[in-house]
Amino acid sequence: MTEATRDVMEAIFSPKSVAIVGIPAGMKMGRLFLMGLQSAGYRGALHLVNPKLDELDGMKVLRRTGDIPGPLDLAIVLVPREHLPDIIDELGEVKTTAAVIFTAGLGELGSDGMKQQRQLVDRARKNGIRLIGPNCQGVYAPRSGLSFFPGMPTRTGNVSFVSGSGSLASLSVGRGASRGVYFNKVISFGNAADLSASDFFSHFGDDPETRVIISYIEGIPEGRRFFETIGAVSAEKPVVVWKAGLTDYGARAAHSHTGALAGDEQIWRSALVQAGAVPVSGMDEMIDAAMMLSFSSMPVGDRVAILSGPGGLAVSAADAAAKAGLRLAALSDDTRKKIAGVLPPAGISVQNPVDVGLGASGNVEQYTKPARYLMQDDGVDVAVVIGGTFVKETNQIYRRELIAARNDTNKTLVVINLPEFARAVQDDDTDTDFIEAGIPVFPSPERAMVALGGAARYGRYLKDCVGSPDD
Amino acid sequence: MTEATRDVMEAIFSPKSVAIVGIPAGMKMGRLFLMGLQSAGYRGALHLVNPKLDELDGMKVLRRTGDIPGPLDLAIVLVPREHLPDIIDELGEVKTTAAVIFTAGLGELGSDGMKQQRQLVDRARKNGIRLIGPNCQGVYAPRSGLSFFPGMPTRTGNVSFVSGSGSLASLSVGRGASRGVYFNKVISFGNAADLSASDFFSHFGDDPETRVIISYIEGIPEGRRFFETIGAVSAEKPVVVWKAGLTDYGARAAHSHTGALAGDEQIWRSALVQAGAVPVSGMDEMIDAAMMLSFSSMPVGDRVAILSGPGGLAVSAADAAAKAGLRLAALSDDTRKKIAGVLPPAGISVQNPVDVGLGASGNVEQYTKPARYLMQDDGVDVAVVIGGTFVKETNQIYRRELIAARNDTNKTLVVINLPEFARAVQDDDTDTDFIEAGIPVFPSPERAMVALGGAARYGRYLKDCVGSPDD
Repeated sequence: MTEATRDVMEAIFSPKSVAIVGIPAGMKMGRLFLMGLQSAGYRGALHLVNPKLDELDGMKVLRRTGDIPGPLDLAIVLVPREHLPDIIDELGEVKTTAAVIFTAGLGELGSDGMKQQRQLVDRARKNGIRLIGPNCQGVYAPRSGLSFFPGMPTRTGNVSFVSGSGSLASLSVGRGASRGVYFNKVISFGNAADLSASDFFSHFGDDPETRVIISYIEGIPEGRRFFETIGAVSAEKPVVVWKAGLTDYGARAAHSHTGALAGDEQIWRSALVQAGAVPVSGMDEMIDAAMMLSFSSMPVGDRVAILSGPGGLAVSAADAAAKAGLRLAALSDDTRKKIAGVLPPAGISVQNPVDVGLGASGNVEQYTKPARYLMQDDGVDVAVVIGGTFVKETNQIYRRELIAARNDTNKTLVVINLPEFARAVQDDDTDTDFIEAGIPVFPSPERAMVALGGAARYGRYLKDCVGSPDD
Repeated sequence: MTEATRDVMEAIFSPKSVAIVGIPAGMKMGRLFLMGLQSAGYRGALHLVNPKLDELDGMKVLRRTGDIPGPLDLAIVLVPREHLPDIIDELGEVKTTAAVIFTAGLGELGSDGMKQQRQLVDRARKNGIRLIGPNCQGVYAPRSGLSFFPGMPTRTGNVSFVSGSGSLASLSVGRGASRGVYFNKVISFGNAADLSASDFFSHFGDDPETRVIISYIEGIPEGRRFFETIGAVSAEKPVVVWKAGLTDYGARAAHSHTGALAGDEQIWRSALVQAGAVPVSGMDEMIDAAMMLSFSSMPVGDRVAILSGPGGLAVSAADAAAKAGLRLAALSDDTRKKIAGVLPPAGISVQNPVDVGLGASGNVEQYTKPARYLMQDDGVDVAVVIGGTFVKETNQIYRRELIAARNDTNKTLVVINLPEFARAVQDDDTDTDFIEAGIPVFPSPERAMVALGGAARYGRYLKDCVGSPDD
């Protein structure tokens, strides 16, 4: 990344001044940008522009964009399409570094719109302005007090998000927060007429505050650069890619959404894996991957030990592990002997998956001791524990002991917290202890194994292609 | 099904008398069976047997099984393995029709246990008793006041469940209830030494109270009979099959869980589809299928129209529809014209998927009118609507108008209710109106499309193999 681009990214994600150009007088969509900045607590210089207003909610409004006191780091432009060229010129006058173009109705509408969009980029270049969008929501960066919607989390995390959809960007931030996954920088890049997904991947790759990058991508005009960028960044940190529009139907929908040209599913998936990315499909799978990767020490291994109270879930977890490309760890004789020592003889299994039986819900040591033995086994990289007890006090012991065993052994621990157990102990917060300890929690074995499979595949990529610190 | 088997099933699911043989004195697992019957409100004659007790919680306890006043419809047997033969003889003395054998440590432990298990069945036959289990939880049937756990829902529904895992049976009933899916009859059949999954499929197939059958199956000893039964029942009502133990790892786990021999995934899946079953994988997918099929008029068509506020979800819903084998309906010119008439010109799409844009969250008619137009289109079998508004009042209008359009058109309507919208309007109950109107609600487009794909495939099976009422 060039020095110039770094300055642009600084202006986008940590702007000293922001202008909302075309702030509406009434309660229209555009108003949400102002409410977003207010609710996120933006503390830089904030300018509002509307040719028909002098004041809005007690804030001064400028009549002309050219009246903004420059230099301006970031403009958020909400004006109708036909006014865009003039506004870009005026933003140039006041020395604007970057502009989010929320305005839609350009490249995504076909050839005429695409021509206008290209002219817009040319005009921005002449004025020395880099563009995000058009047809985008722009930036959410809680540490800088930036948000494109009100009511978004103000807490900063270590996940950054490159999104081809503004609505998915905001929904995913909310979904993540409800699971203890917080974001550092989120960009909704829309039609990507100027700054593209690759630019943001590069920036987040260099960004020390970003530990995991997730992305929602509908189409990529510069395929080669995209994969080179993903490959370079993946050597440093995990890049999760949800490539939508992979089916014929989805591709058609992507084209009318952001004008993107999507492609064939299998080709994309294998190209992504080859580049070191973690492909996902769907918002929950994306957030699951973000949680798994941002909570875990790298690289995550693939030798999994499963421990379950509900016997049927031991079986389905083993199925899900196999489908996700994971290996079931071969337990040492010592581990099996120690586990057998704390379990009743019938209705259980000391193979892997370890089925501790439903009785463990009434005797929490039948969960916690075997779980510790599994994490102590040198042949186990990851312990996946499914279950819980039906009594609030023993459920607290369950959580405390599992966390202690993880801390003592430094193994990866993944917890399946079924809502039925939480409901039985009337405790909505049974996930929280695990999350605060950095232990990923999933609502089903299937979702856990898909996330773990992706993390383990990335772990192998790191070891094979990049070389692990142990080599 | 023979008259004799019908009587056995009546004794199992609507027993006039129940005995718990081997009720423990203290708070052990076995105690849950008594607590289960109490919490489910069982009103028939209830007998408790323990050789060392005279009384438990103010209830009389019999010293000998032979002291139970016969005839006895259903025994729940919790005694140690070595006492089983004598108990079976005593149950024979008092003319017992059927017995749930909770006791584990038989067929699932290998050849010795399997021999004992066979002897147990022989002994039961001589005594005229049919067995459920061993190694099982038995019966949940809320209309009869039967439950194997306390705190299970007392509300009766139209879904019945054939389960090879007791823990999954209870978890699934809870998961279902949290989504508005209620059960009629649930059987956890364990090692299926005598009565098998096929017996229960047949019974639920004939049962007028059962509309949809779901099942969790680890292995099938009588494969041919199983598929013939599924085929026969599928001609009448949908049979959802979660076949676990399909991978090598899962098969090994299934073997130690219930001694079942599992098989190869692809073979099972295509055999199930051929027999008319709806294959699923995982508890959520199973409950999703139960909801989709029990809420919908049969047969469900496969021409789907998608309407979304969040543009990214329109794309991923189209992807998910294609993956699930659904077709995107070709909208009529009239429909498209009417939709275009209520939407703003830019940032939206009146192709299918219809992307109404984020603005619809602020103008609820931009959701509800296009949704109605889609349901009015003769080329559309199913409308899938994704979104909502961020204001409680308009969100109520959203729900009311969608329900009204469904009622007026009689089309299948599927709703994606994202938790972020519910959270924004601070209304935990945004699913309830839809559920009470019999409209299936899913938390993501991916899950909705998988469930809808299964229902539509079953719809084609009904039309092709059985003949629809229209033919």
